Amino acid sequence: MAPNYNSHEKTRQDMYGARKRGLVDDVLVRNVLYGGSDKWEIHTRIARIMQGDPVFDKSRRLYMSRTERYERALAMTKRLYELKDQHSWSDAETSVAIGLIDEPIPTLLHLLAFEPVFFSQASPDLIARYGALVQSRGILGCYLQTELGHGSNVAGLETTATYIPETKEFEIHSPTLTSSKWWIGSLGKTATHGVLQARLVLPGGKDLGPHLFFVQLRSLDDHRPMRGITIGDIGPKAMAGYAGTDNGYARFDHVRIPREDMLSKFSSVTLAGEYVRPPHAKIGYGSMMYIRAQLISKCGWLTAKAATVSIRYTTVRRQGNPDTEGLEQQVISYSSVHYRLLPILARAYVFVFLGRDLEKIFNETSARLASGDTSTLSDTHVLTSALKALSTRHTVRDLEDARRAMGGHGYSAYAGLGRLYADQLPLVTVEGDNYILDKQVVRPAVRAFKQLGRDSHALPLSAQYLQVFGGSPLIIDATSWQNIHTVALVLQWRATRMVQDLASHSDDDSRFDSNAEQRVASAISEAIVADRVVAMEKGIGLPDKERSAVQSLLLLYLLVTAEAALVDLLSFDLLSPGTEAARCLRMAIGRLCRDVLPEAIRLTDAFGFTDWELDSALGVRDGNVYEALWAKVQTEPLNQTEVTRTYMDHIKPMIDRGHNLAASAHHRSKL
Amino acid sequence: MAPNYNSHEKTRQDMYGARKRGLVDDVLVRNVLYGGSDKWEIHTRIARIMQGDPVFDKSRRLYMSRTERYERALAMTKRLYELKDQHSWSDAETSVAIGLIDEPIPTLLHLLAFEPVFFSQASPDLIARYGALVQSRGILGCYLQTELGHGSNVAGLETTATYIPETKEFEIHSPTLTSSKWWIGSLGKTATHGVLQARLVLPGGKDLGPHLFFVQLRSLDDHRPMRGITIGDIGPKAMAGYAGTDNGYARFDHVRIPREDMLSKFSSVTLAGEYVRPPHAKIGYGSMMYIRAQLISKCGWLTAKAATVSIRYTTVRRQGNPDTEGLEQQVISYSSVHYRLLPILARAYVFVFLGRDLEKIFNETSARLASGDTSTLSDTHVLTSALKALSTRHTVRDLEDARRAMGGHGYSAYAGLGRLYADQLPLVTVEGDNYILDKQVVRPAVRAFKQLGRDSHALPLSAQYLQVFGGSPLIIDATSWQNIHTVALVLQWRATRMVQDLASHSDDDSRFDSNAEQRVASAISEAIVADRVVAMEKGIGLPDKERSAVQSLLLLYLLVTAEAALVDLLSFDLLSPGTEAARCLRMAIGRLCRDVLPEAIRLTDAFGFTDWELDSALGVRDGNVYEALWAKVQTEPLNQTEVTRTYMDHIKPMIDRGHNLAASAHHRSKL
Repeated sequence: MAPNYNSHEKTRQDMYGARKRGLVDDVLVRNVLYGGSDKWEIHTRIARIMQGDPVFDKSRRLYMSRTERYERALAMTKRLYELKDQHSWSDAETSVAIGLIDEPIPTLLHLLAFEPVFFSQASPDLIARYGALVQSRGILGCYLQTELGHGSNVAGLETTATYIPETKEFEIHSPTLTSSKWWIGSLGKTATHGVLQARLVLPGGKDLGPHLFFVQLRSLDDHRPMRGITIGDIGPKAMAGYAGTDNGYARFDHVRIPREDMLSKFSSVTLAGEYVRPPHAKIGYGSMMYIRAQLISKCGWLTAKAATVSIRYTTVRRQGNPDTEGLEQQVISYSSVHYRLLPILARAYVFVFLGRDLEKIFNETSARLASGDTSTLSDTHVLTSALKALSTRHTVRDLEDARRAMGGHGYSAYAGLGRLYADQLPLVTVEGDNYILDKQVVRPAVRAFKQLGRDSHALPLSAQYLQVFGGSPLIIDATSWQNIHTVALVLQWRATRMVQDLASHSDDDSRFDSNAEQRVASAISEAIVADRVVAMEKGIGLPDKERSAVQSLLLLYLLVTAEAALVDLLSFDLLSPGTEAARCLRMAIGRLCRDVLPEAIRLTDAFGFTDWELDSALGVRDGNVYEALWAKVQTEPLNQTEVTRTYMDHIKPMIDRGHNLAASAHHRSKL
Repeated sequence: MAPNYNSHEKTRQDMYGARKRGLVDDVLVRNVLYGGSDKWEIHTRIARIMQGDPVFDKSRRLYMSRTERYERALAMTKRLYELKDQHSWSDAETSVAIGLIDEPIPTLLHLLAFEPVFFSQASPDLIARYGALVQSRGILGCYLQTELGHGSNVAGLETTATYIPETKEFEIHSPTLTSSKWWIGSLGKTATHGVLQARLVLPGGKDLGPHLFFVQLRSLDDHRPMRGITIGDIGPKAMAGYAGTDNGYARFDHVRIPREDMLSKFSSVTLAGEYVRPPHAKIGYGSMMYIRAQLISKCGWLTAKAATVSIRYTTVRRQGNPDTEGLEQQVISYSSVHYRLLPILARAYVFVFLGRDLEKIFNETSARLASGDTSTLSDTHVLTSALKALSTRHTVRDLEDARRAMGGHGYSAYAGLGRLYADQLPLVTVEGDNYILDKQVVRPAVRAFKQLGRDSHALPLSAQYLQVFGGSPLIIDATSWQNIHTVALVLQWRATRMVQDLASHSDDDSRFDSNAEQRVASAISEAIVADRVVAMEKGIGLPDKERSAVQSLLLLYLLVTAEAALVDLLSFDLLSPGTEAARCLRMAIGRLCRDVLPEAIRLTDAFGFTDWELDSALGVRDGNVYEALWAKVQTEPLNQTEVTRTYMDHIKPMIDRGHNLAASAHHRSKL
């Protein structure tokens, strides 16, 4: 028998039931996630303003062409700054607003790359001339590094800036097609100025490699490109991602700029054309570390969206065998589904906490740097590199896994997660390609390992896990998997053994085991996170019930990390051979998932997303997913006419031809 | 120093060099991949016709709105059938042409679902009335199964077809919102008729569950929906995928159809309203098996595109440290890159061969079925289920991994792989969700295992791997990984041990280890493929050089499968404990990749793709990727005006506001 109920009413009841069943106070948890109720207040105040503003309406977005998406992004950007003035938002409040825009807007690059690089590298003179305009966006900036033929290897850049002592100018030139600047956000149709990476060439042809120059790209009168500069947009991105941003290209044909427009805080060229060296090679790292630290928080909140949408939908979606009430079962009640989704929820919590953690570490390091103390610089660099690679890898995968766990309807654009995936794909390559970051994580780890014992210094944060070395060996039994500390220890031992193994192997071995470095980097990053998770667990400022729920998520995070590391745990003898060890671990995960399940909806409510923020018909707060889908479908442009306008051109002729064919076949058969 | 060469000239030389270095005759290999030079001739003849036809031009596709994409798909469909008549294409030739369209067109559903279901389930009377029109596309069909609230669980469908003895009609009705038919390809704006799944309800209210009915949806005069039927498109799909197809919804408000329009070849309703049962429950499986067998070939050719584009691009892309000539290294020469890409090439070969293999098995089973012999039906069902799940899972992942391996430019829509990924995502859920297929693979395996020894029958193809049970145990050393047979044995042992383990565990254990079934299903599928790969290896009809290259790919396929299975191999004691076993395997893969590398370009050339077929600026045959990107970029709509049309509305006001702010800040600082 077909279930005799009106299932779109039932979805609302299911959501209500799930909220009622949970015991956790999601308001308390929310305040912890936001870092305090004051932060939440700011967030919700700004969200309310934007949500009520038609410029930030999302309802037509899916039907727009790329050009319209770009224009919408610019309209939102303009409105954002009007609102900032109107409400006197601080920079922190403006950041919240930018996060809420839910679209990569062109001026992000002004904020994230152009402005920090300008202020950290420009001379006082250049800052005096342009600083106020940079801050007020009286000029719109971009950061021109990547070239058509050259990506993360800055040393390979071809664009030149040749000093001409006669006129005291630099001549910027793109000698080849492949030297065209490419992928530059906001360059395509928006930016008026840019900070440009070009090889500094001195009189006599001496090439000093890439340096930074301040360049005007478009006229402030009519926005046309400056003479000698060819600019354009580089076209659509994969899967319609990043549609709002005009990633662009530029070619320079012997373009002259004044000598003073080199960014010369650290290195410069004298009037006569002599080079003045920078004092410290690593001086430029600051802004990159800052962006990476921020990316981890961003990953946390993106993962939170994926978890919220997919857990809400699978809570109200029913499918398959009847449950005790004779209804099809809630999809999330299938272990194969919650085994996929609850770890995503756990990663959202861990990354949100981790992001805040990292920002604090970054701020301390910045304060030290400001007073000339570089002692924690490398450690912070390793930390941010490791955790950026780890969190972005997971987030991109989780966005897609959450979408797929929703089955057929997850493939509807109205589900909302496909768009996030398409937009966030660059996370794994920007601000340091993850493959390159891996190297920057492994090398210092091997160094630290070789120093163990020799050196009385305390281990840096990024190598804390090595403390287990020389300690008593682990003994794992079935109960070990219930203890955060033990699981963290397992992951620390694993990283230590793998670093030790790498350190002891010849280069020849690694030549044929090319992923060794990547595996070791993952192990190190996961051990670092395990350290931080243990610290987080101690620091949860919540009453018992809520604390216990968050602890379960932290433990789940570590358990699924350990499960993914089973090959290493088995081959490095950290678990006893045979099938029992793996089975125990997997059953511990299964049991923990069952424990977490009744609180899942409240733990996602704690992220505090409004329906406007999620923009997902499947993730609506009230669970009324089918009516939400139905309402969305009515706005589809194809549905605005009863008969498609292509009927006369293409459909009718096909049908008529078919009828003629059938008739003549019939006629033939009669003969 | 910057490398002093014009790298866009160099790319062509690199491609030329790679082709010259290879020794394999790609024409010989190509004929094997296509299943004979006659098949290749057909393919290339049809491709040439379509490529020259402006209707199949792809150059504007990325800039089209979804409505335009739908209209383009219909224009191509109409043209396709004109060409079929003009050139008198056979059905097989028409299939080749449809494959070449490179876009999911609406009438695919007519061909793949509507037509086969109609002809296999309709009564002779219904076929007499509509068969010719179905075949000639005088009516355009769709297959209405899924509902808004109900997916793969057919038993849960809500739409009813109630028999009314008074008028000898069925009344089709959608009792709830959730009973709306949903996701139905070609229903949105195209189809005129459909085969509909609805619960058969007899007088007195007896519900006999889902049955099939033939329903007219739109008028043949003016294409408007028939009375009582509400139809529309369900909106855009995630990541702009499947844009050309009008997946649609339909609701039925007490719509009457004649009793004769039930598809009643096997079950029917008498005039008086009595039910006549079907003779055999599994009778409807045929078409689903056929589609699944075809999907494996499709996966092979999609993977071939991913391999071709990514291997070509990484061959001409140079990045990083200088090589012996002082140039940056070819990206594919990095082991971390070819370790990712060559296994994709290997999977393309294996799936192309496997698809042909499966079609042969399917045809044999069909021939048996036609004579009433159902003896191989279940086995073929398990085979197609297992291999469909395995191949689609890999293909979707490989499309994305290949895209990412291309780094930044892989995220350009012009790279071509993002679109394929977005379009092919449904592969993992359609025609049997992979999670459900897993169950259908595991249960018969456990049954077959329990029968071992008891039963003198030969093992079916889907359980051949169990032959190893009871045989002598494996002894693996470093040389084992050079032998296809040994690696296949390892995978067969692994599946056998896992099936044995599952059979011996209580239900309670599996309750908390929810992925156990999925892991066992993968192990079984991989063992089945290993069987087939061993058979393929014997059957390669090629001269030594080419045979050896193809053998290397088959071995590589099995080795990376074994690497991904390391957790199982270690925990089931198929490898000795410690780190050596895993290291040996990984180094064997690394060495084999180095061996295959010089032939990689020729082995991708063997797929025979033209630039039109690939539609990728990074995958162009001549290697001239940067000029191809440059040319594409010039067609981007945003680049058709020098200054964006949004300048006056949004950019100028922002700049002006910024100047005012900066001026007043300056003024304040003077006070």
